[in-house]
Amino acid sequence: MSIKNLQDFREKLSQLPLLNSSSEQTAVERNAQLTKPAGSLGTLEDLAIWAAAWQGQHPASFNSPQIVIFAGNHGVCGQGISAFPPEVTVQMVANFEHGGAAINQLAKAFGARFSVHPLQLDTPTADFTTAPALSEDELLTALNVGWNSVREDADFLVVGEMGIGNTTVAAALCSALFGGKGKDWAGPGTGVTEEGISKKAEVIDQGLDLHREILNDPIEILRCLGGRELAAMAGAVLAARYQSIPVILDGFVTCAAAAVLAKANPTALDHCVAGHVSAEPGHVHLLQKLKKKPLLDLGMRLGEGSGAALALGILKGAIATHSGMATFAEAGVSDKD
Amino acid sequence: MSIKNLQDFREKLSQLPLLNSSSEQTAVERNAQLTKPAGSLGTLEDLAIWAAAWQGQHPASFNSPQIVIFAGNHGVCGQGISAFPPEVTVQMVANFEHGGAAINQLAKAFGARFSVHPLQLDTPTADFTTAPALSEDELLTALNVGWNSVREDADFLVVGEMGIGNTTVAAALCSALFGGKGKDWAGPGTGVTEEGISKKAEVIDQGLDLHREILNDPIEILRCLGGRELAAMAGAVLAARYQSIPVILDGFVTCAAAAVLAKANPTALDHCVAGHVSAEPGHVHLLQKLKKKPLLDLGMRLGEGSGAALALGILKGAIATHSGMATFAEAGVSDKD
Repeated sequence: MSIKNLQDFREKLSQLPLLNSSSEQTAVERNAQLTKPAGSLGTLEDLAIWAAAWQGQHPASFNSPQIVIFAGNHGVCGQGISAFPPEVTVQMVANFEHGGAAINQLAKAFGARFSVHPLQLDTPTADFTTAPALSEDELLTALNVGWNSVREDADFLVVGEMGIGNTTVAAALCSALFGGKGKDWAGPGTGVTEEGISKKAEVIDQGLDLHREILNDPIEILRCLGGRELAAMAGAVLAARYQSIPVILDGFVTCAAAAVLAKANPTALDHCVAGHVSAEPGHVHLLQKLKKKPLLDLGMRLGEGSGAALALGILKGAIATHSGMATFAEAGVSDKD
Repeated sequence: MSIKNLQDFREKLSQLPLLNSSSEQTAVERNAQLTKPAGSLGTLEDLAIWAAAWQGQHPASFNSPQIVIFAGNHGVCGQGISAFPPEVTVQMVANFEHGGAAINQLAKAFGARFSVHPLQLDTPTADFTTAPALSEDELLTALNVGWNSVREDADFLVVGEMGIGNTTVAAALCSALFGGKGKDWAGPGTGVTEEGISKKAEVIDQGLDLHREILNDPIEILRCLGGRELAAMAGAVLAARYQSIPVILDGFVTCAAAAVLAKANPTALDHCVAGHVSAEPGHVHLLQKLKKKPLLDLGMRLGEGSGAALALGILKGAIATHSGMATFAEAGVSDKD
């Protein structure tokens, strides 16, 4: 089942599968019996319950996590908004394919299957200051690359991205979805100067002005101001919802793509957790808008799904403790006075 | 080599091995060449460099992490300062030995060797409100249990504890080491009420008053107000320093034990990171005193080394990325403009 057309995408987004309240309840009950003071595993307890609810099974499993990375190029790079040249996107895809990037090492470390999906890197999107970034057909194609990348047998999904220029694109999406000007969402990305950040903000404001007619429609925002790798991430996050696979969101760009879904349907990211908060300044504001508390805060700002992949360790620990611990009765441990 | 006597302990603490600046420098140089924008892996980069420095090898390894847990009982429990009865310490040790506790699952999840070391659980320490908790011989014995628990072939060490009543003991140590009254350091522990916290504070103040003559000597503070599992943790952290094994500290009780070393020698914890900040309110203040930024903040408050064990995933990711990533030259990726 893939996305037939943009109307189908809108319908899939409006009729989302719900969590499994029976497996959720079973997880809540088991959690209360484990050999620890109530609540003492903190967020790990919440994660184990959340995962059971969204996998629709108790206990939740952590056997086949999957990491999918999408790569795209952006016409807006012509405006000189990135510290690295656009050919780095192609070079980094080769690095992913040869196993040399950070995400490859993290995938191995946490036993996750990894795939990278380059999206027409030799055909950048249109420059959003002069035209819609994508046509309807191009948007649909990218959404389906994401949708089709998700494996049925995955029990957790990490989505991430690579694309020179895409923190500018993400900041433009955030401005369009949540309000504010370019300066409220633009940041250093891979390392531009203060001057570069001002340039990014200016470019975003031009895009917002050009596309002001469509700013009430999240899907049109994704098409006019987004990019292929962002659309693919949105498609993957939605596919995971339909396949009962909890998602770990990565940094600013990933969350901007996911925010399109949340703006179209406020419950669209209930099967997602924020893997981390990145050092890109817009991310902390975006997570507040999405009402997501990040699992990690380690000053990372690489993208590639790296923060979310690192958070797989937290999920692994959460599932392991919930599934493997003895109950008070099994262990013969006295409960609280 | 174990600790011969308390004088030997003091000498070992004053003549600490230093980091290996050559392996540190090699790590710094390699970090700068990896296929990522400079600094974009945030804390992971610092951890990989720190680990190389303190393991004395580049790249640092993550092949044989070790988790050691110490358990003790406390005479001060007679004052009614815990939500659980003291027999739970023995019961939980059995749970550790049978593999049913949270820490057992986390050890398995991150490939760590696990051992639990009960310290004379049928002979609690003396109640510190009426006498020194430990004699000099008892302190030395406990220090050596910790020292001898550390395996030579470990490449990281997690230290943790179990001991009904020991958040009161830890709070007493913090008051004695860093100043403040009982109320400034006492918290809910495994779950006492507001009234229980006041009782803990009062008991701590009695202890501070009784032992006021020795409050300028961290080792005497450990003896008079501490406990066997805390002394053992201090011994293990010191042994790790002598064996070039970086340490991941756990929560409030573990850090209180480590703080004894830091107070005796301000560089004593340079080979340690804080695995997490726990929900026990004193821990955040203690980490500030120790100048340690925690890797995780997930509302955990179980002890057992559980927060530090979960942080093993972060260390694993740090070592994996530093060791496994391609350099810009190897991958043919263009560096920053």
